[in-house]
Amino acid sequence: MNTSNPRIGVIGTGAIGGFYGLMLARAGFEVHLLLRSEFEAVQRNGLQVDSAVHGSMQMNIAAYADAADMPACDWLLVGAKTTSNAELAPLIATVAAPQAKVVLLQNGLGVEEQLRPLLPDHLHLLGGLCFICVNREAPGVIRHQSLGAVNLGYHSGPAVDQAQRQAIVEAGAALFHAAGIDSQAMTDLAQARWQKLVWNVPYNGLSVLLRASTTPLMADTDSRALIQALMAEVVQGARACGHELPQGYAEHLFAVTQKMPDYWPSMYHDFTQQRPLELAAIYAEPLARAQAAGCELPKIQALYQALAFIDRQVASRGKPAPTTTPL
Amino acid sequence: MNTSNPRIGVIGTGAIGGFYGLMLARAGFEVHLLLRSEFEAVQRNGLQVDSAVHGSMQMNIAAYADAADMPACDWLLVGAKTTSNAELAPLIATVAAPQAKVVLLQNGLGVEEQLRPLLPDHLHLLGGLCFICVNREAPGVIRHQSLGAVNLGYHSGPAVDQAQRQAIVEAGAALFHAAGIDSQAMTDLAQARWQKLVWNVPYNGLSVLLRASTTPLMADTDSRALIQALMAEVVQGARACGHELPQGYAEHLFAVTQKMPDYWPSMYHDFTQQRPLELAAIYAEPLARAQAAGCELPKIQALYQALAFIDRQVASRGKPAPTTTPL
Repeated sequence: MNTSNPRIGVIGTGAIGGFYGLMLARAGFEVHLLLRSEFEAVQRNGLQVDSAVHGSMQMNIAAYADAADMPACDWLLVGAKTTSNAELAPLIATVAAPQAKVVLLQNGLGVEEQLRPLLPDHLHLLGGLCFICVNREAPGVIRHQSLGAVNLGYHSGPAVDQAQRQAIVEAGAALFHAAGIDSQAMTDLAQARWQKLVWNVPYNGLSVLLRASTTPLMADTDSRALIQALMAEVVQGARACGHELPQGYAEHLFAVTQKMPDYWPSMYHDFTQQRPLELAAIYAEPLARAQAAGCELPKIQALYQALAFIDRQVASRGKPAPTTTPL
Repeated sequence: MNTSNPRIGVIGTGAIGGFYGLMLARAGFEVHLLLRSEFEAVQRNGLQVDSAVHGSMQMNIAAYADAADMPACDWLLVGAKTTSNAELAPLIATVAAPQAKVVLLQNGLGVEEQLRPLLPDHLHLLGGLCFICVNREAPGVIRHQSLGAVNLGYHSGPAVDQAQRQAIVEAGAALFHAAGIDSQAMTDLAQARWQKLVWNVPYNGLSVLLRASTTPLMADTDSRALIQALMAEVVQGARACGHELPQGYAEHLFAVTQKMPDYWPSMYHDFTQQRPLELAAIYAEPLARAQAAGCELPKIQALYQALAFIDRQVASRGKPAPTTTPL
């Protein structure tokens, strides 16, 4: 492993992977991008991020259509949808250097648990929770509206004790810091994932259900009350599973969202583009874990059932079947 | 009052009022229809009901654009939206014979309570719960898909005791029976209204929220589970308010709906035609009554809040403001 200048690979260079990949490349790190549909555009024009925070940025970054062509990477940032993790495992194994750190920049619960058995034992697996408003505008073009922090936590791998785990997570946070990105090394990944759900559970689902972005959702008495009730259920579910979230955390995220520019969560884009919704990680798994701990979350369950209906309706309507299944 | 051949007025001759008005006229009763936007069509072509049960029926029935032109009626069937009850009160008072029976053929709770103080004391006020699949196809043209029963209950008025109330309700049921319509005289109107909510709460709201009619809603695992959970909450709310619904009632309505032809509930038509949704009667009032009895109905509340958001979004989008307000 090259500690002085680690080689960073990005698997699934969508809005999230592309943004962080470019920020790291811009900070001088060696970055390699694995792409699918956007390979030719990025190969030809480089990657472009129009950021309301950092200005307009454009860089030529090594791009690949085939994982076999990539050099062995010390860090792998996985920005693909949780719905495609299983099929990514062989690609990750191909690109990973020995004892590489694989970071799932994904929301929800259970994503590491799903991927772990499919990965070689020598790889460290981490989770990264991104607090960022970013979306893909065109092939190779990303729009960054606000925020950007990444909270990292260790899941599993060859680290022998908590000190070693924490050192790896801190090394990851240091990479992001070097790229001008706020990043916290979390001691408990599951806790970090529950914290992020406080945002994703209400806003992702309601954006699809109510066809509404954050500004109208935060402007209406009833949707505000519903968002707060859903957030409270996430906090309750986390507590039932042994994770006491920081006092006032839900109120904090609610206030942050109130101040954000108008934002369409990623699930809404998945919906309009007829991609499978990330319901397993964001809804089904938290519901199942809370229930296993004896805790019912009735509003989240109702929201989940409504979204599952919508997801299936979209999937069954004449469009070519997506290559991955949502659940 | 003419008991041998009572005169029947229909206020708000939409799908419901028009169907029952025509069925009663067809059975030989003297029927008078008060209409607004459809007055000219019905005046010119009569009223038409295309019924999957009774065949195609067409009749010329006395139609009025102005309540002042109508003769005094012994029975008044109110088929207008609950959202317009307040403005109907003066029309009802104008058309009602002394001690007339006013029957609100409407869903939800609180509709009689809202109208009662606006009506003269000498009028009997009843509620009627319609189990019917019917919708307006064109001005003066109604499509009747299936079912048709009306359950009646006494709310308030000059009846001095329970026997007199029951006699009036049974007289109403007899009118419907004479027209070939199934009708039950209920001893407890509030109970009858809660029973009907077991259907309206899930299907009306989900048809709007999920843009789906009964067939797809009854075909998907998750929407079925959500419907059953919402039904169970209605039963629970009714119980908290002192109304023990018949054993297996929710299961019965679920099975009936499973066998029904594909149906778009009235709230969906209100939604697509940008009319205010009947949220106060079907959601807000049951929630408030259950809560006052110490009973939370979390899934119904979440559904209500989502619908209230949608209702307000529709109302605020550039269309001419509806003449009535939804809440």
